[in-house]
Amino acid sequence: MVLGKLIIASGEASSDMRYAAGFSTPDDFIWFSAGPCRGVIMSPLEYNRACRSAAPGVKVFTEREWGGPDRKAVICAVAQKYGVPGFAVPEDFPLLWADRLRSSGLVIRPEEAPFFPEREKKSEDEVNMITSALRQAEAGCRRAFAILRETEIARDKTLLWNGVPLTSELLRFEIDSTMMKGGMQAAGTICAGGVQGSQPHNQGSGILFAGSPIVMDIFPRSASTGYWGDLTRTVVRGTPPDIVKRAYDAVLDARETAKKAIRAGVPGSEIHKIAANVLEKHNFHTGSGEAGDYGFFHGLGHGVGLDIHESPRLSPRGTAPLEPGAVVTVEPGLYYPEWGGIRLEDMVYLDPAGPVRTLTETEDFLVL
Amino acid sequence: MVLGKLIIASGEASSDMRYAAGFSTPDDFIWFSAGPCRGVIMSPLEYNRACRSAAPGVKVFTEREWGGPDRKAVICAVAQKYGVPGFAVPEDFPLLWADRLRSSGLVIRPEEAPFFPEREKKSEDEVNMITSALRQAEAGCRRAFAILRETEIARDKTLLWNGVPLTSELLRFEIDSTMMKGGMQAAGTICAGGVQGSQPHNQGSGILFAGSPIVMDIFPRSASTGYWGDLTRTVVRGTPPDIVKRAYDAVLDARETAKKAIRAGVPGSEIHKIAANVLEKHNFHTGSGEAGDYGFFHGLGHGVGLDIHESPRLSPRGTAPLEPGAVVTVEPGLYYPEWGGIRLEDMVYLDPAGPVRTLTETEDFLVL
Repeated sequence: MVLGKLIIASGEASSDMRYAAGFSTPDDFIWFSAGPCRGVIMSPLEYNRACRSAAPGVKVFTEREWGGPDRKAVICAVAQKYGVPGFAVPEDFPLLWADRLRSSGLVIRPEEAPFFPEREKKSEDEVNMITSALRQAEAGCRRAFAILRETEIARDKTLLWNGVPLTSELLRFEIDSTMMKGGMQAAGTICAGGVQGSQPHNQGSGILFAGSPIVMDIFPRSASTGYWGDLTRTVVRGTPPDIVKRAYDAVLDARETAKKAIRAGVPGSEIHKIAANVLEKHNFHTGSGEAGDYGFFHGLGHGVGLDIHESPRLSPRGTAPLEPGAVVTVEPGLYYPEWGGIRLEDMVYLDPAGPVRTLTETEDFLVL
Repeated sequence: MVLGKLIIASGEASSDMRYAAGFSTPDDFIWFSAGPCRGVIMSPLEYNRACRSAAPGVKVFTEREWGGPDRKAVICAVAQKYGVPGFAVPEDFPLLWADRLRSSGLVIRPEEAPFFPEREKKSEDEVNMITSALRQAEAGCRRAFAILRETEIARDKTLLWNGVPLTSELLRFEIDSTMMKGGMQAAGTICAGGVQGSQPHNQGSGILFAGSPIVMDIFPRSASTGYWGDLTRTVVRGTPPDIVKRAYDAVLDARETAKKAIRAGVPGSEIHKIAANVLEKHNFHTGSGEAGDYGFFHGLGHGVGLDIHESPRLSPRGTAPLEPGAVVTVEPGLYYPEWGGIRLEDMVYLDPAGPVRTLTETEDFLVL
């Protein structure tokens, strides 16, 4: 029984839709593949946008051509025309539509993600779009470096920029607006100083101080292409404590050792283990205490593309061999509630035509 | 058969989840209501965040308490403990999970949106959060007014700001960064000049000119509260053509007439019709030509809250009577491919304790 494939979603909510259709919309529409035909079925409001920007090989239909706007009638007509008994759909396919289509006699089979495993293998165009987004993250990061270098250190170690205390919020604003000028959307930039940096999800708030690590995790999305970049650097203004220097060296060693081990055919879980072992060798241990987890307690990295987190995983759960053409982050970290966190993140491309390439250009240093 | 209610979603993807749980996360989690209990079931990574910010009356559980992390086991255990045969779920509930739970014998019934009809009725707190977001939109709009006033008009009517041509992109950046400083996220701001403004979804690009209407539709979301504001103004730098002045007067009349007619109990479709009639009375007609639709061809307005578009509709499809406590936009527009568009948007609150209140404070004028 050969099923078609079907997505009902907006391009904004579903990267699978954006990938398959080649464009994005604020409202839901239909993409299908059935027999020899791949197509999108559009409302009058979005028909022109679709014609301009549909992916190669994707036919653009009006809903009227298929007896719409009634969506159930449209999808049944597609199944009938191409002789398919139903459709495979993404795991998050909307239940109400699944039930309606099933009650019309169609087979609707949810597929565990990824719906398009081929998204893992990036085309040259995609690598270029990811690299462009990364360059904007790097521009934001350089702006932060420049601001931190301009700060003066008050007697209580407060960082003063143009005479006023520098906060996480202000530093984030400067990073984000730099990237926005470059056509990016930015909505989760982390600037976490001191012990806030010991929680990997803490965005950071309040005044930043000298002598403490500041974790900056910067991941903008291109407003035009939809592709993401991802970069993390951790720096200290002034003099860092010895433990911070040693943690930094350990994380940098873990990242570089892991990067050298990455190649197609090796499972992501192996690469994760290599990084974890380097951190152990540097005498930084991982565990769980009264104040929560400490050490290295997240995955080493993840694929990046139209989603900021996508296949493959570089984590204990990433047991499948890495595919040539993947773009992944490598971002080991160390987190201790006593003094904060260090995370260093590069992006690498498993170039099918040559050696693994580091896409990130931002230099590595701890003290500025 | 009394079903419980169940959501599996991230707070970022689902405003129903954010509303029910009282907080937002990047990753999926479980919210349920069953018998006397409303609760969320969290992974270790998000447990502390949930404890800090869960809505009143929502109990925070760890997944381990319910036999997790296996999600199917967790949900079956909840159903058993509270004696419910299954759950009503939102219409976009993920199909894969629905099938898995149904195969365990649970009833999973998708409800057509809205899943929480009570979201339409805003609390005083919610109105304050919406108003705060609107004030930021207004700050962005004022920034745009100030920039346009500072422009000089070149001989070819190009607007020059600080000596260089002012573009839609630059004006949008200035609006968005103003709002970001106020803690907002902004990702779709429209600055569409001239004929671009005749397409309501066109974000605008390229150089802006004197003598042409510039549609600015500004809708930021508070990064902290998740509530939206929504504001549209249309202005001309220099001297507008007569047709643009007449269209502006017609749209303003339509907006004000519609606002006066809004009250609880009247269907949104009635209000839409009132605005449409005013535009006709001003001799601006609606239809479809070779270049696409023209006139007034979108809904008059929509509810605003945790979603930028939510119940109720002020459109031909909004046949249900408006409820007291709703916050809605009123945004008539006129669009003609020959010269562009005019849209003027205010927000109003159907205060259950008094007359309908306009929340928007930005002044109305065409020429600056």
